[in-house]
Amino acid sequence: MSKEDSKKALKELGAKIVHQVKKGNNPEIVFPLRNLSNIIYDKKSKTLKLGTKTGTRSFFNVAHSKKFLQTVEVASVIKDKLLDSGKHSSLRDVFYMVKRTIPGTKVNLVDEQVESDKAIEDLEVMTGLSREDMHVEANKNGSVAGKVVIEDRGDTIDWSKMGSGGWSIPSNVEELKFKKVEAKYVLYMEKAATWNRLNEDRYWQKHDAIILASQGQTTRGIRRLLQRLYEEYNLPIYVLADSDVYGAYIYSVIKYGSIALSHASDRLTIPSVKYVGVTMDDVEKYDLKKHLIKLDEKDYARIKQVSEYEWFKDNKDWQRQFKMMKELKGKVEIQALSSKDLSFISEVYLPNKIKNKEFLD
Amino acid sequence: MSKEDSKKALKELGAKIVHQVKKGNNPEIVFPLRNLSNIIYDKKSKTLKLGTKTGTRSFFNVAHSKKFLQTVEVASVIKDKLLDSGKHSSLRDVFYMVKRTIPGTKVNLVDEQVESDKAIEDLEVMTGLSREDMHVEANKNGSVAGKVVIEDRGDTIDWSKMGSGGWSIPSNVEELKFKKVEAKYVLYMEKAATWNRLNEDRYWQKHDAIILASQGQTTRGIRRLLQRLYEEYNLPIYVLADSDVYGAYIYSVIKYGSIALSHASDRLTIPSVKYVGVTMDDVEKYDLKKHLIKLDEKDYARIKQVSEYEWFKDNKDWQRQFKMMKELKGKVEIQALSSKDLSFISEVYLPNKIKNKEFLD
Repeated sequence: MSKEDSKKALKELGAKIVHQVKKGNNPEIVFPLRNLSNIIYDKKSKTLKLGTKTGTRSFFNVAHSKKFLQTVEVASVIKDKLLDSGKHSSLRDVFYMVKRTIPGTKVNLVDEQVESDKAIEDLEVMTGLSREDMHVEANKNGSVAGKVVIEDRGDTIDWSKMGSGGWSIPSNVEELKFKKVEAKYVLYMEKAATWNRLNEDRYWQKHDAIILASQGQTTRGIRRLLQRLYEEYNLPIYVLADSDVYGAYIYSVIKYGSIALSHASDRLTIPSVKYVGVTMDDVEKYDLKKHLIKLDEKDYARIKQVSEYEWFKDNKDWQRQFKMMKELKGKVEIQALSSKDLSFISEVYLPNKIKNKEFLD
Repeated sequence: MSKEDSKKALKELGAKIVHQVKKGNNPEIVFPLRNLSNIIYDKKSKTLKLGTKTGTRSFFNVAHSKKFLQTVEVASVIKDKLLDSGKHSSLRDVFYMVKRTIPGTKVNLVDEQVESDKAIEDLEVMTGLSREDMHVEANKNGSVAGKVVIEDRGDTIDWSKMGSGGWSIPSNVEELKFKKVEAKYVLYMEKAATWNRLNEDRYWQKHDAIILASQGQTTRGIRRLLQRLYEEYNLPIYVLADSDVYGAYIYSVIKYGSIALSHASDRLTIPSVKYVGVTMDDVEKYDLKKHLIKLDEKDYARIKQVSEYEWFKDNKDWQRQFKMMKELKGKVEIQALSSKDLSFISEVYLPNKIKNKEFLD
């Protein structure tokens, strides 16, 4: 969505409230509820979505008035300070920009960041704008390499000429333009060390792949970048993670969405994404048994929880994986493949898996 | 140090052991101790250093033999698998490459990564090689922008043409070559969101600065990059962090070194680095009192601990900061400056502080 469209959406919200005030009505805002009771796993689109339940927040209601004010103030700060100036900011910055004492009282408009965060999420569901559309950015993390040329803020950036570092993936990838995309698929991995290995082996060059990694969680910037590469270039997306319940969860967030961001599923999920490894089947196939790391209580509890999620419940492949984890009482890291040879992952493991389409869905 | 020098150092270590074996002696390796009793704060160089105490590890000693084997095996893996092939790997990869069962026994050469990590540290102090010299890489994190052109792995990379993302700082910056460095100083900040702000405001362009950030801890790659920019181009290095004890510690690690890496102080510390902010004095000066975040028990305990470190003990400026934190019972984040204006930090705060040389040492 363009900056002008975003401004328009926020202005309309404001105009509606002004209209109510002028008519002498109690000003109110209506928004879809975002609690668990209204989060639905949509089997058809295979994503987590918001249901149809709505809530109302009205000004002349002691229980609502502060949240009403917070929402309106955040909308105003976003329009005036971010969209009008063309600047971007973090959630934390928005919090500080909104934080002030209401004149004539000792009450702060917001005391904790969670309040302005919630207001931003409410604005997302009310207006259909994404956080990125409103110029509010998430954490930045991760690197990318591949035969891709982009244009971003007036610079032409060639992802195949980034040396050992790669291009640092920004928080917001909405405005970057793809100029050239020469790739057969995109490989996202959860570990920067694995990315280093593949980059040093020039995997992206030999296999016409785009390689991306974060360290730890998949940022919104990375999820949107993956989605744009899938939607605009129809590239298959493959995920490479540890063979444990945390790897499964990382994969599921990219594929189905997350509870916290269920209202943004359309913009963030990629239902066609495939899981390339590491799997519990690899333990036997590649003789990794001695590299199994023993599961602890926390692992077992998390396996139980994740395997019962609606989006995993009927997935036979993944249920088999969870079962094998419990039977073998262990998990396997990507790096365990280095025990065979440092470049085994880039020369044997990944090319074979991808050639033979050995994926989990 | 060149790859050939690194190989030579490891080969010499091996040759010494072979010589002892041939002479019929008990093979042994001697190395400086790395426990706290041998870590010294050198007031002259203002860095943490290793003392002169040494330990010995001999093969025919039940308490030593496993560690002896681990050290020799890690040295061999580094020479054969990394230096000979020119490849780089993470600590975790080295662990998996070394992990095997000793033939004829049920004993694993290593069971936990900490064992191979320690062996690598021992090799560092024994040979004078750095981990980077041995091609073992730390975590990768962080972005950089500025009027700098480098050459890395055959690519020419212009840090002024990296759009909104920046160049992703690699784990190992030993081999990159500076081609053009047009900068008056280097600004390192602990938060990626602040970097986003300064990059969007093109701070690096307007002020001839190089801006670097990680998210959280300062990686070895960043510390070495800062040090190279200081040593090779004589650029002042300024640190921007939250006004709390954690910000003070981040600064102190860059300036004085850390206990864990005291043996690498020469390669990693920059005694001339200055702290530009945020400080407790800013609270009054910039009217940030209402943005103070209340200290908790953990903060107080950490202030006590850090303020008693030898390298902070006699530092009046920092003792004053710690005192003010306790008096005001609070800490202030960099982002609190956004309450004035989103670009206050890049248009007013930093230019003024740097122009007036308002630094903490």
